Amino acid sequence: MQYPEPIAKLIDSYMKLPGIGSKTATRLAFYTIDMRTDDVDAFAKSLVAAKHDLHYCSICGNITDDDPCEICRDSGRDQGTILVVEQPKDVMSIDRTGDYHGLYHVLHGVLSPIDGRGPDDLNIASLIKRLQANATVHEVIVATNATPEGEATAQYLSRLIKPAGIKVTRLAHGLAVGSDIEYADEMTLLKAVEGRTEL
Amino acid sequence: MQYPEPIAKLIDSYMKLPGIGSKTATRLAFYTIDMRTDDVDAFAKSLVAAKHDLHYCSICGNITDDDPCEICRDSGRDQGTILVVEQPKDVMSIDRTGDYHGLYHVLHGVLSPIDGRGPDDLNIASLIKRLQANATVHEVIVATNATPEGEATAQYLSRLIKPAGIKVTRLAHGLAVGSDIEYADEMTLLKAVEGRTEL
Repeated sequence: MQYPEPIAKLIDSYMKLPGIGSKTATRLAFYTIDMRTDDVDAFAKSLVAAKHDLHYCSICGNITDDDPCEICRDSGRDQGTILVVEQPKDVMSIDRTGDYHGLYHVLHGVLSPIDGRGPDDLNIASLIKRLQANATVHEVIVATNATPEGEATAQYLSRLIKPAGIKVTRLAHGLAVGSDIEYADEMTLLKAVEGRTEL
Repeated sequence: MQYPEPIAKLIDSYMKLPGIGSKTATRLAFYTIDMRTDDVDAFAKSLVAAKHDLHYCSICGNITDDDPCEICRDSGRDQGTILVVEQPKDVMSIDRTGDYHGLYHVLHGVLSPIDGRGPDDLNIASLIKRLQANATVHEVIVATNATPEGEATAQYLSRLIKPAGIKVTRLAHGLAVGSDIEYADEMTLLKAVEGRTEL
């Protein structure tokens, strides 16, 4: 006996999502059948809308349903600073702190020779063009992840941008707020000591 | 800054699924945007199809896109045995063993006074009708879960069906195949000793 076709297809679809195996997909599919019809229809519609109505901002590369995006259009933001992130969702993470009021630029990845990803595969050319076109930018903050690839990408960008007389900075490394020294790894502790601040 | 509306709606939809919080929902939503358009469209279609094309079999209560379901229509199956399960997905779990060739009946839940679920909320009346209409049934196997509610439901069904002269059996309790005695709980070990078989 096989599952009826509609449910087998739905299980297949759920399995295409990251981190969802056949057991979870089956559970989600049966759950879906018991959901309210309204909710399922809205879910289907939002999937299609997210795929078809969203695209990348032609200036910063962030995900948007308008072009340029809300942030690039906002003349109230500090036009002198650009914060560079790996992924669109990082923009939201930084913006949620409420402390940064400049512009963003999304690379859509990091340099990774192992995966065959070089500078041309990232959204770097448009960043350089932006800096050349806009003389008001005085600082580029590189907020790539604290991974080896993120560090290498930050170094690469720094070497590329600094000669133009623009300040290039990197997010601080150190202990996470609320974390125990006991559980911090050696590299993090090393960076935390190096970057100590005066009280 | 807020997420663009299409992505905010998709995150909301993912969060309606069981076990998916806002972080996972956000990750899935961004993943969806990078999926192939074909796959997203197929996903949306399969959601709608699963909700609208599937219903419960009027005989056994299993999920089906036909009525009666594939199993109830199959005259090659042993018409003398009915195996009673809690949920439609349990039918597939049992059938996959390939060792049971009788019919099924899906209760859609178990008796649970705490949740206010009594016999009338389960698919029990139709089981009794089935047994009355079909004199060939000589055994009902109760395959509810090995939980207190599952046991209580099994006892209830047994008291209801036995007076009609039909044999009522329950799945065996014991050690899971491949498991260590060291990690088995006391109740399971007790049942395993009680139900020991001769070699």
